[in-house]
Amino acid sequence: MHAKLGVLGGMGPLATVDFLYKLVDRTHARKDDEHIPLIVHSVPQLPDRIQAILKHGPSPLPALREAVATLQSAGAICLAMPCNTAHYWYDELAAQAQVPFLHIADTALAAITCRGLATRRLGLVGTRGTLAGGFYQQRFTQHGIECVISTQQDQEQLIDPAIRAIKANDLEGATPLIECAVEKLMQGGADAVVLACTEIPVVLPRFNATLATQCVDVTMALADACVDWWHSHNPGAKRTHVSPDYHA
Amino acid sequence: MHAKLGVLGGMGPLATVDFLYKLVDRTHARKDDEHIPLIVHSVPQLPDRIQAILKHGPSPLPALREAVATLQSAGAICLAMPCNTAHYWYDELAAQAQVPFLHIADTALAAITCRGLATRRLGLVGTRGTLAGGFYQQRFTQHGIECVISTQQDQEQLIDPAIRAIKANDLEGATPLIECAVEKLMQGGADAVVLACTEIPVVLPRFNATLATQCVDVTMALADACVDWWHSHNPGAKRTHVSPDYHA
Repeated sequence: MHAKLGVLGGMGPLATVDFLYKLVDRTHARKDDEHIPLIVHSVPQLPDRIQAILKHGPSPLPALREAVATLQSAGAICLAMPCNTAHYWYDELAAQAQVPFLHIADTALAAITCRGLATRRLGLVGTRGTLAGGFYQQRFTQHGIECVISTQQDQEQLIDPAIRAIKANDLEGATPLIECAVEKLMQGGADAVVLACTEIPVVLPRFNATLATQCVDVTMALADACVDWWHSHNPGAKRTHVSPDYHA
Repeated sequence: MHAKLGVLGGMGPLATVDFLYKLVDRTHARKDDEHIPLIVHSVPQLPDRIQAILKHGPSPLPALREAVATLQSAGAICLAMPCNTAHYWYDELAAQAQVPFLHIADTALAAITCRGLATRRLGLVGTRGTLAGGFYQQRFTQHGIECVISTQQDQEQLIDPAIRAIKANDLEGATPLIECAVEKLMQGGADAVVLACTEIPVVLPRFNATLATQCVDVTMALADACVDWWHSHNPGAKRTHVSPDYHA
C-alpha cells in the first residue's frame, strides 16, 4: 500500500478543504506525481468539541480514535489535524498513533519565528474550546510568549458568530467580525495575532491588507509543516518548498 | 464505522480539492454535521492515464483497484471519481466495487438536461485520453447527442498545454488557451461545451462571462449528484440542495 499523509479533518468541512488547497498550493509541484499522497478522513458527525471541553456534552474522543485507526489502516505514515479545537485530545491521539502527528500550535510557532514577527505578546483568536483547552497558551508560554485573548463579550459577539457564519459559508458576514476582534487585540498590545481556528483563515484574503500582515494563518503553517515533513522523510521526493524545520 | 462518500481523487490534486470545495459549497449546510462524511484517497503517484489509454505506458488499473478497496475498507458506501480520464477504467472499477459508483458523464448529462441547454450537438473539451477512451461520446450518442471535438492541432496547441499549466497551478496561463478552444467549438456549431476534464473547470470563474454560460462544469455536476445521492439514501440527512435525479 502506498504511504500517505493522513488528514484528520471534517471539523469543519470548509476548513479541511482550505487546508487541502494550501497543501497542494505550497507543494509547488509541476506535475501530478510531485504532489503529496493523501488519505483524508472528513466526518463532521461527531460530538461537538467545544461543548465537550466545557463539560456540557459527550466526548468526541472515541470518534477521533476511530478516525486515527482508519487513516493508519489506509496507509497514513504521518498525521495532521486541521482543527485547532480537536487538539484538546492531541495527547491521547498521538499516544494511540504509531506514526508522527504534527501539532498545530508547534507548527504555528515555527511559522511565526520564520516570519520574524515579534513574539513578546501574541493575540490568540479561536473557539472557546481552544482557548479553554489552554494548549496554545501552554506551548507558547514555554517559549516565553505572553498570550492575550479577547474579552468574553468579544468572544460572544464577534468570534463565535463569525465562526458559525464561516461554517455556514457566509464569508462576507464573518469578515468584519473577525477583523474587529483582531484590531482590539492589537490595540491591547499584541505584537501579532494567531488565527488559532482553521475556520478563520478562510476569510483572511478578505481582510484589510495591513491587518492581514499582522495575522498568522495556522492552516498555512500546518500545510507548510506537512510539505516539509513529507519531503524530509521521502528522499525520493523533490524538495520544492523551503521553510523552517518544524521537526527539530 | 461511520458510512462515508468515497472520493477517488488525486488525478490531479488541485482538481480533487476543487471537487471537494464544490461538494461542501453545494451541500448548503448550516452547520458541520449537515455536511457529507467523506473519505478521500488522493494518491497522484500512479501510471499516467493518458499514456496508458494511448497504449504508450503501463495501466493505472491496479493502483485504482487498490484505491477502491482502501475506500471501501474505510467505510465508503458510494464512490465518485473526480477525474474524467480515469473513467476509462470505470467498468472494471464499478464491477469490483460493492457499492454504487457515480459516472461523471452521466452526471454531466443530467446537469445539462437540468439547465435546459440545447443538446443536438455538444462540444467536448478533455484530455486526449478521455477523448480517445470514447466513453463520453458513447453515453451521449445513446441520448441522440452528436459530439464535436477540437482538431488535433487545437488539442496539442491549446488544450494539452492548458491542462499542464493548471496541474502546475498556472491558472492565468491556462485560461486564454481553454477560452480559445471553447470559442472554436461554438463557432463549429456546438450548442454548448462540456468541460470534460476536472482540471479545466478550475479556471471557469476566470472565463469571459458569456462564454462561461455556454460551458458545463462536470466537476460541479458530479458534486451535485453526490449531494443528491447522499440525501436520497440517508433519510436522516436534511435535503437542502435541489437538483435533478441523476440516479433514476
